[in-house]
Amino acid sequence: MKRIEHIGIAVKDLEAANKTYNAVLGSEHYKTESVESEGVSTSFFKIGESKIELLAATNPESPIAKFIDKRGEGIHHIAFYVDDITAEIERLKGEGFRLLNETPKPGADNKLVAFMHPKDANGVLVELCQEK
Amino acid sequence: MKRIEHIGIAVKDLEAANKTYNAVLGSEHYKTESVESEGVSTSFFKIGESKIELLAATNPESPIAKFIDKRGEGIHHIAFYVDDITAEIERLKGEGFRLLNETPKPGADNKLVAFMHPKDANGVLVELCQEK
Repeated sequence: MKRIEHIGIAVKDLEAANKTYNAVLGSEHYKTESVESEGVSTSFFKIGESKIELLAATNPESPIAKFIDKRGEGIHHIAFYVDDITAEIERLKGEGFRLLNETPKPGADNKLVAFMHPKDANGVLVELCQEK
Repeated sequence: MKRIEHIGIAVKDLEAANKTYNAVLGSEHYKTESVESEGVSTSFFKIGESKIELLAATNPESPIAKFIDKRGEGIHHIAFYVDDITAEIERLKGEGFRLLNETPKPGADNKLVAFMHPKDANGVLVELCQEK
């Protein structure tokens, strides 16, 4: 793991949350992107070498809709940048961790991504990501 | 806000979580520290320009004990580094945000810290921190 690539925050209203985080961070979001396969709209803010990714559901079956129904808005995941996601998945499996995706899948922001099982990381949903 | 200074993760057992995050991040924690006034023991891992801070309660009245009782283990807060915490508190108040600490207080890792009200930031507990 090289650095925090982004922190994903589940929000109900992307436009309202963009205004809030613009005010918190003192900078504008630089990109919005929908990932239809995940049922999410996203927007990104730069902060140092990392990003804040706001995530809003685009349909009621979206994992983000389910997360908010269960826990309310808040931090959804931490993503770490890795140079070789396939090697990192194998390394983590060797350490005994369960991966929700044993094969990397396409994510937002031109990335290949894979998630670890949050029960194996003290309740934290950890995403690995690598540039495509 | 300059960069993500750290992500705070609430855990039940600091020693076990150190082993877990050593395996996840592929690096050892470099420091442990107790903050008696907050009822927490902490340990720190470096990751790029940021840190992961594991937080365990040292007594049942600790905010970390209460957080885990209510929500289980998981991400507790995001801390952003600021150059001038007093100016940043005033800026955020001017934007209409409520601060849990209107005056900076001493935190772990030789920092002055202040927390924002999570209801004003989509359920995210945001910490500002500045080197003492």
